[in-house]
Amino acid sequence: MEQNNEAFNLDRNMKVHNFNAGPSILPNEVLYKASKALIDFEGSGMSILEIGHRTPPFVAVIEEARSLVRELMQLEDDFEVLFLHGGASTQFLTIPMNLLESGETAAYTDTGVWSSKAIKEAKLFGYVDVVSSSKDRNYNFIPKDFTVPPQAKYLHITTNNTIYGTQWHHIPETDVPLVADMSSDILSRSMDFNKFALIYGGVQKNMGAAGATVVAVRKSILGKVTRNIPSMLDYRVHIDNASMFNTPPVFAVYISMLTLRWLKAQGGVAAIEKINDRKAALLYGEIDENPLFRGTVVKEDRSKMNVCFIMDKPELEEEFLKFTKKEDIVGIKGHRSVGGFRASIYNALPLDSVEVMVEAMKYFSMKKA
Amino acid sequence: MEQNNEAFNLDRNMKVHNFNAGPSILPNEVLYKASKALIDFEGSGMSILEIGHRTPPFVAVIEEARSLVRELMQLEDDFEVLFLHGGASTQFLTIPMNLLESGETAAYTDTGVWSSKAIKEAKLFGYVDVVSSSKDRNYNFIPKDFTVPPQAKYLHITTNNTIYGTQWHHIPETDVPLVADMSSDILSRSMDFNKFALIYGGVQKNMGAAGATVVAVRKSILGKVTRNIPSMLDYRVHIDNASMFNTPPVFAVYISMLTLRWLKAQGGVAAIEKINDRKAALLYGEIDENPLFRGTVVKEDRSKMNVCFIMDKPELEEEFLKFTKKEDIVGIKGHRSVGGFRASIYNALPLDSVEVMVEAMKYFSMKKA
Ligand SMILES: Cc1ncc(COP(=O)(O)O)c(C=O)c1O
Ligand SMILES: Cc1ncc(COP(=O)(O)O)c(C=O)c1O
Ligand SMILES: [Mg+2]
Ligand SMILES: [Mg+2]
Ligand SMILES: [Mg+2]
Ligand SMILES: [Mg+2]
Repeated sequence: MEQNNEAFNLDRNMKVHNFNAGPSILPNEVLYKASKALIDFEGSGMSILEIGHRTPPFVAVIEEARSLVRELMQLEDDFEVLFLHGGASTQFLTIPMNLLESGETAAYTDTGVWSSKAIKEAKLFGYVDVVSSSKDRNYNFIPKDFTVPPQAKYLHITTNNTIYGTQWHHIPETDVPLVADMSSDILSRSMDFNKFALIYGGVQKNMGAAGATVVAVRKSILGKVTRNIPSMLDYRVHIDNASMFNTPPVFAVYISMLTLRWLKAQGGVAAIEKINDRKAALLYGEIDENPLFRGTVVKEDRSKMNVCFIMDKPELEEEFLKFTKKEDIVGIKGHRSVGGFRASIYNALPLDSVEVMVEAMKYFSMKKA
Repeated sequence: MEQNNEAFNLDRNMKVHNFNAGPSILPNEVLYKASKALIDFEGSGMSILEIGHRTPPFVAVIEEARSLVRELMQLEDDFEVLFLHGGASTQFLTIPMNLLESGETAAYTDTGVWSSKAIKEAKLFGYVDVVSSSKDRNYNFIPKDFTVPPQAKYLHITTNNTIYGTQWHHIPETDVPLVADMSSDILSRSMDFNKFALIYGGVQKNMGAAGATVVAVRKSILGKVTRNIPSMLDYRVHIDNASMFNTPPVFAVYISMLTLRWLKAQGGVAAIEKINDRKAALLYGEIDENPLFRGTVVKEDRSKMNVCFIMDKPELEEEFLKFTKKEDIVGIKGHRSVGGFRASIYNALPLDSVEVMVEAMKYFSMKKA
């Protein structure tokens, strides 16, 4: 390990503090292992990119990834875990295509850009009942007071809203199957994942690199629509083919497997949640105490993954950004629809990066006082 | 370069002779460069997996990949080049969804498993006229004698049939837009790419690693169907978003860009074609001369990418396979639907690997004489 470090002439201890919103920071050991596998995968003399996807070494990789998701989420037997192409955006259409008969209704909560994109695609397949929305307050809270029509085929939520920094801290109780986009908080906190009928996400935040999509779906909800579903969009086809109907995104699946292994070695979801709680408490604590900064989100709905904040004096924002850059802090510029700053503090971001950030905020504020 | 070589304790000169059908061999320099970028991308202190996909360094990568495809194929201005998710298998459905109005007809040639999978998906969207098929001879030739109904919206061909080892050496003349799956021979030979209306392929054979799909499409053929196309399946959406409607498969696009750069440095398509011709001539020459081996494909339709052959004494096949394994030859077991052997000799496979293979055939035959 140390040796590679040198060979690459890079000291990862001096690495940047990477607050990117996704693609985002990954554990060092995942990167080192992957870097070696790119040249020689497990002594095969071939790169991980050069081996057949149906050969035993890669089948072992994808099967380990699938079973680690199952294990870390403690999923019941009815679930199947798939690694697919296409990103979360493809799931926006695949979900209604598989679950919503034309003429039937699906319930969606509108908590941000990603929810509304999911709604847009669902409307191509059936009726969409938007049961609640925080749009008129620029999505700065989670609208929790709503009724789901009993005939709805499912209720869709976005558990964490990457752009606005809100998060569902209590999973809504409902009698209809619950479908969740967990792209930006998957495996970051304990919850009863068995409350869901379908969980999905692009893996490029907490679970790997861009290029793979994870889906955990209950088999019992499938096969109920009458439309013809193209093979690549049919969950049953992927289940029947053990997530290898076509050539999978081999390297992205491998990175996910390594990231899941890393998470398990940390102690799994409950253990990472403790660290994530500390990181979030530290950063929100500073935002609240520090007179220069202010959170943009209603407190009870604050995301523990994407921390959004602004300055009371917007003319200082550019200066603060420049100052943090010198401290090797990257990725904190807020999304244009919110402005200010967004610090994404996913599983792989170490506590010390948050400490550096908080120090920078304190120091900057002191200078300006 | 040499130093990394040592750090990884791997001498790529002693590497295996990789005849895999795809995913398959990549140029060494692509792998070394990517291996470094996995730790530190262009001195950013971050991995290529950890940078935002909308940041200038990655936008430069995807734009270079897109323009290298355009340049290497010498495409007319009407073409747009996209790097998408989903593999060639997703294009099987995306193509008719975008081009074939329900009730209209598309013409397909059936030259193998991949063609017939494309046909199966197209049937979900309109009428499919299978204008020719070599199925009843186990796809061992290219059926070139056919008529395309003038009302067909397009004619679909699979330029190289990976499993059976056949290849279209003359692109059929037709008055309707020509659509081609070039997954397994893209950029391996000179041709007038402007004869096509849409060219597509998974990039994991001649153009990179599994996880990205290349599409070159003429804008003028789009926007003519009335159905609602989901965003992720709409070529116009991807064109309008410069191939970045959602998070692209970042690393797979990066590998493609490096592989395209490598191809350009070799002298482009015309130069690689000369080497590919030599490799194919050498291997088919030995198959023909050597009394133990026999090609499975009608000579005029032999693929220069996937060389399929059998032994007259099938009982020797297992022994030959073992013998070649000792010579570090991998990936030559034939697909179960053909049997015998398949040696894939894509762009990145060096001539000397073919020479080693031919020596092995000669030596084995001598021992058995
Ligand atoms: C919550 C959420 N859903 C969906 C998406 C879209 O994911 P993808 O780009 O993989 O399609 C994102 C992307 O950031 C996201 O944060
Ligand atoms: C000619 C051809 N078309 C399509 C495919 C399917 O490609 P993918 O696995 O990327 O969907 C393959 C795979 O080998 C192929 O060889
Ligand atoms: Mg959002
Ligand atoms: Mg404050
Ligand atoms: Mg074929
Ligand atoms: Mg012979």
